[in-house]
Amino acid sequence: MEKINRVAIVGGTHGNELTGAYLVKKFEQFPELIKRPSFETLTLLGNPQAFKAVKRYIDKDLNRRFQIQDLESNDGSTYEDKRAKFINETIGPKGNPQVDFIVDLHNSTAHMGFSIILAEKNQFNLELSSYLSTIEPELKVCIANEQGEDSSFLKSICNRGFTLEVGPVAQGILNAVLFQKTEMLVHSILDYIEKFNRSDFENNKNSVTIYQYLKTVDYPRNEAGELDGMIHPQLQGRDYQKLSPGEPIFLSFNGQTIYYEEEQPVWPIFVNEAAYYEKGIAMCFTKKKTIAF
Amino acid sequence: MEKINRVAIVGGTHGNELTGAYLVKKFEQFPELIKRPSFETLTLLGNPQAFKAVKRYIDKDLNRRFQIQDLESNDGSTYEDKRAKFINETIGPKGNPQVDFIVDLHNSTAHMGFSIILAEKNQFNLELSSYLSTIEPELKVCIANEQGEDSSFLKSICNRGFTLEVGPVAQGILNAVLFQKTEMLVHSILDYIEKFNRSDFENNKNSVTIYQYLKTVDYPRNEAGELDGMIHPQLQGRDYQKLSPGEPIFLSFNGQTIYYEEEQPVWPIFVNEAAYYEKGIAMCFTKKKTIAF
Repeated sequence: MEKINRVAIVGGTHGNELTGAYLVKKFEQFPELIKRPSFETLTLLGNPQAFKAVKRYIDKDLNRRFQIQDLESNDGSTYEDKRAKFINETIGPKGNPQVDFIVDLHNSTAHMGFSIILAEKNQFNLELSSYLSTIEPELKVCIANEQGEDSSFLKSICNRGFTLEVGPVAQGILNAVLFQKTEMLVHSILDYIEKFNRSDFENNKNSVTIYQYLKTVDYPRNEAGELDGMIHPQLQGRDYQKLSPGEPIFLSFNGQTIYYEEEQPVWPIFVNEAAYYEKGIAMCFTKKKTIAF
Repeated sequence: MEKINRVAIVGGTHGNELTGAYLVKKFEQFPELIKRPSFETLTLLGNPQAFKAVKRYIDKDLNRRFQIQDLESNDGSTYEDKRAKFINETIGPKGNPQVDFIVDLHNSTAHMGFSIILAEKNQFNLELSSYLSTIEPELKVCIANEQGEDSSFLKSICNRGFTLEVGPVAQGILNAVLFQKTEMLVHSILDYIEKFNRSDFENNKNSVTIYQYLKTVDYPRNEAGELDGMIHPQLQGRDYQKLSPGEPIFLSFNGQTIYYEEEQPVWPIFVNEAAYYEKGIAMCFTKKKTIAF
């Protein structure tokens, strides 16, 4: 497999997710922290204007602007349209990028713990995920539906790499423990890449547990489309736990419980993510499985 | 003491603090819930535009626009300037209001639990606080520095009433357990007022533990004024716990611990409140004491 010559650490793609943004600023202040002998490490503050405003985005969600058609289009004049193109010029272009690995650092208000969301289900990504799971046993590995050209996520510029979701943490704050653990995980990633480049790593595993995206589920809403309920207390904070038919998912404002009524169990993630209310997403259903690599 | 004829329940004074906003909407849908025989209960969505945008405010913090001089000024043309005047006309005017009691429902990202912040340290407010403490043993009672005319808070329209702070909860989300407990507490307030009006309540207590505001403390910052550290892990989540000289308060990004170095112990509150980063407030120091009434 090709060696990795350049790594991009991206933070603040969403301006109110502060862990990644301030980690990038820390690494810019102390660049020796992310130096490794066999490759170069770049840092990038994804959305500087949104970070300044402590908002997810100024006009549009930047992390949904990386489909090939959007990057190549001459339309789109919002701040995030331009910013996506700038990022694609700086570390891309998507499909033939100047960097060989991207980690995009995010936060969630959901109980995501430390979650990797893979850009692509390839050998390198799965081996790295497996390695990181041994360093951080609580780490979870997710695989999105959108892959490659169709993917609208920043990480899709490069086929090696992933989004790291850390939570729960409120938008607009720093939690020191999560900051330190995220920093440690970034170091583990860089150390792994160094070993990989030197062919100095023996992998004893050949499988990893993953959570494959199935679909998103919206909140209960009234006829006007307004919220009519909340995540049920029995589901709140239980991301990655099996949800079986007949178990509660929502509590409507009038006190009525709404149950999960499909036939197969699912593993919900992004349960009660603040940024997803406007997207009509109360949670994402996934299927847990083990895949070989 | 004068009876209470009209009560105002206000929510969504900050548009991204959803518990109060959706409770107000629930009470508007089911008005019988807040009916009591001896008084009228009004509801008010404090900042509808900010609620729609899921932001704390559109132009300015509405809950800092209620000083007499601002309400009486002809200057101030922002949305929140106008909204403060509208609210003052609707339930005020401040000092001689149309309502006899205000509860303003807020959320915090800090571990505030259920906290009352009194508009004024009068007999009625202290007796009610004491009563609510017996219903909800974890409830805390705070007394702000700003009182009466000088106070810029919405609650200061009326000398009976308070802000209710509930947390920790991220901005822009609903937590069902906190929603239900807040609703219960609103009912306890209304029930108490009903008993008070009927002189049907015997108070067995004559003192209450309060947390008196001393001052605010900012985060460590670099020469450019940018954040240079975070709440120390040993302080995170420990609102209302005694902080003694020599104990850690901040962790700078380069890993250095910053200690509390004053001579007297304090009781920090609003530790790591998202909305206070822009105000230069990492936490508020208070002094714990018992006061008789």
